[in-house]
Amino acid sequence: MPDLHVPRRDALRELVRQAGADALLVTNLLNIRYLTGFTGSNAALLLDAEGDERTLFCTDGRYVTQAGAEVPDLELVDDRASAAALAKRARGRTGFESHHVSVEQFEALKTLADEAELVRLPGLAERLRLVKDEHEIDAVRRACAAADAALAGLVERGGIRPGRTELEVARELENLMLDHGSEARSFESIVATGANSAIPHHRPTGAVLAAGDFLKLDFGATVEGYHSDMTRTLVLGHAADWQRELYELVAEAQAEGTAAVRPGAVTKEVDKTAREVIERAGHGDEFAHGLGHGVGLEIHEAPNLAKKGDGTLAAGMTVTVEPGVYLAGRGGVRIEDTLVVRDPAPELLTLSGKELVVV
Amino acid sequence: MPDLHVPRRDALRELVRQAGADALLVTNLLNIRYLTGFTGSNAALLLDAEGDERTLFCTDGRYVTQAGAEVPDLELVDDRASAAALAKRARGRTGFESHHVSVEQFEALKTLADEAELVRLPGLAERLRLVKDEHEIDAVRRACAAADAALAGLVERGGIRPGRTELEVARELENLMLDHGSEARSFESIVATGANSAIPHHRPTGAVLAAGDFLKLDFGATVEGYHSDMTRTLVLGHAADWQRELYELVAEAQAEGTAAVRPGAVTKEVDKTAREVIERAGHGDEFAHGLGHGVGLEIHEAPNLAKKGDGTLAAGMTVTVEPGVYLAGRGGVRIEDTLVVRDPAPELLTLSGKELVVV
Repeated sequence: MPDLHVPRRDALRELVRQAGADALLVTNLLNIRYLTGFTGSNAALLLDAEGDERTLFCTDGRYVTQAGAEVPDLELVDDRASAAALAKRARGRTGFESHHVSVEQFEALKTLADEAELVRLPGLAERLRLVKDEHEIDAVRRACAAADAALAGLVERGGIRPGRTELEVARELENLMLDHGSEARSFESIVATGANSAIPHHRPTGAVLAAGDFLKLDFGATVEGYHSDMTRTLVLGHAADWQRELYELVAEAQAEGTAAVRPGAVTKEVDKTAREVIERAGHGDEFAHGLGHGVGLEIHEAPNLAKKGDGTLAAGMTVTVEPGVYLAGRGGVRIEDTLVVRDPAPELLTLSGKELVVV
Repeated sequence: MPDLHVPRRDALRELVRQAGADALLVTNLLNIRYLTGFTGSNAALLLDAEGDERTLFCTDGRYVTQAGAEVPDLELVDDRASAAALAKRARGRTGFESHHVSVEQFEALKTLADEAELVRLPGLAERLRLVKDEHEIDAVRRACAAADAALAGLVERGGIRPGRTELEVARELENLMLDHGSEARSFESIVATGANSAIPHHRPTGAVLAAGDFLKLDFGATVEGYHSDMTRTLVLGHAADWQRELYELVAEAQAEGTAAVRPGAVTKEVDKTAREVIERAGHGDEFAHGLGHGVGLEIHEAPNLAKKGDGTLAAGMTVTVEPGVYLAGRGGVRIEDTLVVRDPAPELLTLSGKELVVV
């Protein structure tokens, strides 16, 4: 199998050269994972614009064995102070990740890099990471499948029933995701019942599920470091009219927002398409967050599908569409999918049903 | 109960005034949790040196309800761009967390803070966080207790036996920690069997536990956001002479290092005390990491007990002592405790036995 990371490093080199630099000091660990496959907790990469022969990878003693297996093709420097060690070896015009390096760290690196001029080059690797290759999309797809299978398993075994606590449901859901191939939960699961469902980012408590209540589940799995993100809102027992109406409204906004996702769409316009559905129903103020976000090695990454988002969508981006309406003290509904931007229509990765399931 | 956070904010104000500043813009979420109790994922705090009446707390719509419950005593600003919103409202000489704010973020904040002069004030809240109050120590103690109880439970129910995989053991251990009151695992558990135990930071795999092998377990729990950290190394079945010798060597180094932990001790001297035991036995090169680190809201925080560590210990710091010797291709031993620096002797928080348990 051809190494996935070589073409990514070559693409980044192109951006580094376009920026007029001789090298890029990469210190964001997620970018390092993307560019090399290294999964340890301390590393730096000095990517030379000339090629891999002159590129240096640094980690410390704890990870030398792992680096030998994961990054066999780059010269290894063993030093705990990984960024500092590579700054000392930098030559010429060397970019650094100024969106990631702190002001203090930069002051220190500047002093060490006495044979290089450090220049701000923010977000170059992130620019590549915006559009996923098929290997990455497959990892997100598998993460989504683990979450889908976990939810189906939970419903099937009767795990959602009056009398259980939010914490019990969250834990069972997370264990089921692990059973279905997730490496770890993607983020702290949101399990919110009754009035708690009106809190967009509620943390599970000992609150007990009761008949007639909403149950909002927002959770995700991780595969090869890539995340999934999905929200479903259910009703326990019998759904009241106001619950059905609220649900249908959010479902309509979600469908409209999804339909607006296509290559070339302006992100804030996609947000607007879904938001207008909710505003027309008089609930604009109760949809107090953006429509969605990119998903990949980070659970929240670019692009930002929000009122103030900028940029346009491109084929191969993986994003969420997740409108919600939250009625304080009563309950809230959010419906969220992870999908791939494709031409002409997006590919849905979270496949759990979106009818209002009454359990 | 008196609010825990008011005295912390007052102590920080004292440092801000000593630095000649009128306010501090706090953007590190862990510092914000420490200073306010807020546990959401987006916030900023503009701590005015005058007092809480002039201090502002900012989060966004997703967390407004939560902020009302967690931070009822500070004026709330609702804005997704939390740091930017507070920079705009800053007046006078305003410190910022230059060890945390990126170069790009600083450039943006500088432009927004047109009525303030932003000055670098790195690490002030971290300086307070170095020494834990009794409430914090109690949270670390309870996290350690959850980890102790999980390990005891795992051994008791026969969860460690030939034929199981590292991943199975890791998962059971993590579930047992949750059963015993942990909010989440403290970090990705290390379960390393046989030759894998020679990899200091091995990630659990499908490798199968076999009789005669070392089994290294490095894991932790979290309570109220505070971490525990403990490593135990066991032998499955019968321990060979080389395994006993290696184990006794590391145990001696661990005991010597622990005995050197006291208020006023220089951190690199504590490291040296334990390291010399291992060096005298000819294994210095096979102890390729520091002796320990601080533990608190972060799993790794100051002080750094290492060759190049600086500073001295003070009563109330919570630190690990974790020497290890790793024989590549054969196996390794690490023994790690979390303890509180006390006068005259440290208080041990991880209470699991440290004899070489043969299971």
